[in-house]
Amino acid sequence: MTADRTATRWNGWGLNDETYELGKRAPAFWNWVATTLGMDTLPDTPAPSVDEMDIPDSRLSEELRNGFAALVTDGYVKTDKYERLFHARGKSYIDLIEIRQGKLDRVPDAVLYPGTAAEVQACLKYASENNVTIVPFGGGSSVVGAVTAKGKTSTAICVTLDTTRLDKIIKVNKTDMTAKIEAGKYGPEIEKALQAEGVTLGHYPQSFEFSTLGGWISARGAGQQSGKYGKAEKWLVNTTLATPQGLWETEDFPASAAAPNLNQLIAGHEGTLGVITDAKVKIHPVPEAKQYRAFYMREFRHGVDVIRTLVQRGVPVAMARLSDPDETRFFQAVSTVGSNKALALKAINLYARRKAGTSPCLMLIGAEGLHAGVDAAMDAARHIVEARGGVHLGKVLADQWYKSRFHSPYLRDPLLDKGVALDTLETATQWSNIEKLYREVMATIQKTMNSVTPDGQYGIVMCHVSHAYHDGASLYFTYVWPRDPNDPAAQWQRIKTAASDAIAVHGGTISHHHGVGTDHRQWLDREKGKLGMATLQAAKDVLDPAGILNPHKSFAD
Amino acid sequence: MTADRTATRWNGWGLNDETYELGKRAPAFWNWVATTLGMDTLPDTPAPSVDEMDIPDSRLSEELRNGFAALVTDGYVKTDKYERLFHARGKSYIDLIEIRQGKLDRVPDAVLYPGTAAEVQACLKYASENNVTIVPFGGGSSVVGAVTAKGKTSTAICVTLDTTRLDKIIKVNKTDMTAKIEAGKYGPEIEKALQAEGVTLGHYPQSFEFSTLGGWISARGAGQQSGKYGKAEKWLVNTTLATPQGLWETEDFPASAAAPNLNQLIAGHEGTLGVITDAKVKIHPVPEAKQYRAFYMREFRHGVDVIRTLVQRGVPVAMARLSDPDETRFFQAVSTVGSNKALALKAINLYARRKAGTSPCLMLIGAEGLHAGVDAAMDAARHIVEARGGVHLGKVLADQWYKSRFHSPYLRDPLLDKGVALDTLETATQWSNIEKLYREVMATIQKTMNSVTPDGQYGIVMCHVSHAYHDGASLYFTYVWPRDPNDPAAQWQRIKTAASDAIAVHGGTISHHHGVGTDHRQWLDREKGKLGMATLQAAKDVLDPAGILNPHKSFAD
Repeated sequence: MTADRTATRWNGWGLNDETYELGKRAPAFWNWVATTLGMDTLPDTPAPSVDEMDIPDSRLSEELRNGFAALVTDGYVKTDKYERLFHARGKSYIDLIEIRQGKLDRVPDAVLYPGTAAEVQACLKYASENNVTIVPFGGGSSVVGAVTAKGKTSTAICVTLDTTRLDKIIKVNKTDMTAKIEAGKYGPEIEKALQAEGVTLGHYPQSFEFSTLGGWISARGAGQQSGKYGKAEKWLVNTTLATPQGLWETEDFPASAAAPNLNQLIAGHEGTLGVITDAKVKIHPVPEAKQYRAFYMREFRHGVDVIRTLVQRGVPVAMARLSDPDETRFFQAVSTVGSNKALALKAINLYARRKAGTSPCLMLIGAEGLHAGVDAAMDAARHIVEARGGVHLGKVLADQWYKSRFHSPYLRDPLLDKGVALDTLETATQWSNIEKLYREVMATIQKTMNSVTPDGQYGIVMCHVSHAYHDGASLYFTYVWPRDPNDPAAQWQRIKTAASDAIAVHGGTISHHHGVGTDHRQWLDREKGKLGMATLQAAKDVLDPAGILNPHKSFAD
Repeated sequence: MTADRTATRWNGWGLNDETYELGKRAPAFWNWVATTLGMDTLPDTPAPSVDEMDIPDSRLSEELRNGFAALVTDGYVKTDKYERLFHARGKSYIDLIEIRQGKLDRVPDAVLYPGTAAEVQACLKYASENNVTIVPFGGGSSVVGAVTAKGKTSTAICVTLDTTRLDKIIKVNKTDMTAKIEAGKYGPEIEKALQAEGVTLGHYPQSFEFSTLGGWISARGAGQQSGKYGKAEKWLVNTTLATPQGLWETEDFPASAAAPNLNQLIAGHEGTLGVITDAKVKIHPVPEAKQYRAFYMREFRHGVDVIRTLVQRGVPVAMARLSDPDETRFFQAVSTVGSNKALALKAINLYARRKAGTSPCLMLIGAEGLHAGVDAAMDAARHIVEARGGVHLGKVLADQWYKSRFHSPYLRDPLLDKGVALDTLETATQWSNIEKLYREVMATIQKTMNSVTPDGQYGIVMCHVSHAYHDGASLYFTYVWPRDPNDPAAQWQRIKTAASDAIAVHGGTISHHHGVGTDHRQWLDREKGKLGMATLQAAKDVLDPAGILNPHKSFAD
């Protein structure tokens, strides 16, 4: 358990004592940001402190407090302001922006920390009997509002159930290459325990340090090396799900034809059907070798072709990540503006751009596993890249990405502190549709940012492909714009809605790995259909007849 | 469409004009069978003809007939005796045995052949409004009773809905490497159409020639090369499901985090939730090379180790099939008794047994794909086999298996004609449990066969591993015994029940690829749990509120 939630930011990303260090290059960096966005000055808009926050008092009655406290080891029922704030929201742009308004209407009335699966189940049963809304909460890194403290009704008592005391490794089986792990365990703790035994789950989402096993499964997350280790629903073997109606240990077989596989109904449920208390997952030997290399592609579509070829030919790469020209340019600027690195990069670019043109697309390809397999995979990948006109840049840029891959989310808070907005959204679609979807969403975000920023200011949008499958791939968009100081939520919503509409109309899924939460609900019906939505709700009605579990999230009423 | 259902046996396996040819070796073969089972004489018990069958009259009213006829192109509503018998049962041992009693109580009152998805949906809606039971039927090759004409109640009108007029290739997309195909299309027709375009689905179950796309998905089937192409739920991308409540086109994305993937609720539903009218599936280039090789392993567990190593190291083999010593001996006898082949085999054995012992286990390993990949995979496989003490036997035995792989099911009918019984059952479990489950099920079947056959007669049981996964593999048991001429159904049920109990108690799934149907229902609760069963039934209640679709099959009330 990471009991000490005070080590991480409640109103921003990551560890309190870690920041995006700009050092001496800060003035040049901020000047570049201002110039890029057309902002004359960057305002000073720091996040509020706990004391500065205006939140409603807890409405938890003494009776309910005692009722819950009797059900959890050591009576871990917390109602102090910090705990309630920490659990009020996830980590989306809009979460942080609403916190920065200094006032939150929706804050949990209490936070429960059950210590065992049986305690979780008892809490759910008790909550169900007392009509208390329960919001399951792992690391709280949701960027779609899935952990927002939203009651079933505006008057319903709303309690967040924190799973992070469920942090045991139950069993590691190196014959089956599976591990049974409690669901509230954080990424680093999971890998530390597994790697001590020579094995790995290999699931490294960007939120790795601050997210939990249960959250990964609940939101169908994807790690950066999903090419080798798979998306959560692929490495999931079985789960224990606590529900108001009882503990449900789902089927546990390597394969079966005994009716539909209900583990796949739990992957992606986002806490609406129950609370995952443990899961059995597929593990792998700790890779003997890891090799990441960078390439430039002349055009985005050439890079897409390369990734498609890699996957469809079965070249065992762990990762293939293709930035579009805008993202390539942006991230090189972010990491080099005002520094000597810019010069080194210029040298690389001078050479590479002779072949890859002036707007190259950065491609990172990585393989992990046995030495011989990694070498063979990288040779095959390089051959495919070069056949499509790509230029090998070596390891430097790739290693730089690898080292900083969990650090880049720290950039958002300093941007927010200076009146800038940054959000991301993602989708997936078929190979045959990917260029069209890319163009449409890019154009829509750009156009909408233009319409919601003053004349002379502008937003920038960029994209990368990072997870690839037999029949298609994901697209991940990052967009940065001057924040409207008066109504940043409405400004954000206009961009988000336009982008999501474009995704839906042009054949993308509303989320590839972030989930649905509150933010993607209005686009879900279109994907699932009327009968699909009714089927999901029917499953919920069986497991949670009182409808107390994460209401108004994903498909749930 | 294979409109001419009269080309295939209604009371046995396969094409009318194909049989298991014994030729000159027939006397020796039957002598070997009798000796092996301890039967003094083999009785003559041929299957009845259509005329000899005693079945109830169709209860379909003129009104219902006209109602259905108005909904399907060309008024394809059939009530003749042949059609009703053809669709009364699947192809399990007990199906054929009950047919051989000369009397069937449960026969569909009519057979519908809708020609489009909209027609299927209209039939389901009409049936729902008129409380007519619908039994979906593709190739009818179920071996678990999934297509048995069983009404919701004993008085309910029961109509079989045959999907084989839904036989179009809707679209082949060689960028996405997917094909959208109507669900009633038979295996050979699918592969013919796809291979004409240079692609393949690669799904070759033993029933390939007589089963359909919709059936494969509905029962979560597995092709013999599942190592490369995957089980049905893996190659399924999306479906159109006709239900009494409407047509449901399920989500269609390469990957998504937008709530649970409902395609995985349709895979394995066995016609209880609706009728699949088309599906989009993953395809592959027609393999440039195929290579199958045979090996002997000294012990079963050594072969299990080899397969586990192949899968967990990611060696891209399409198939790894390991027979136990009994199956190795049995199938070599079946294919050679009374022939010169026996001598050739003896020569192989003489050499190989020097290394592999006197009770070797036959292992077949195959790879398919690009020449270089196939060679590399087979080299890696051979290395792993030899490291575990296996002996390479070359291609002959493997090619022999490959050539006859759809022919061996033809052996069952001549055995049944001579008073012999043959059934199969299958399961899957974790690697760490596989030897124990193997021993327990083998012993249980052997013991139960002993107890249901007269003194001096005996059954034989054998097993192979044929589908392997990260964390475990399937076990497939074949058992042959002297049939009780008086009550063969009760005799069969005792063996089946004992074996299924052993599977359940010792951690196997009740089916790896056959499905649940009627025969495995009583073991399903244990796997799914009370909450899982209730969830599945709730999904059914949404899609089929009148409960007309394949009642009393799988999880359905």
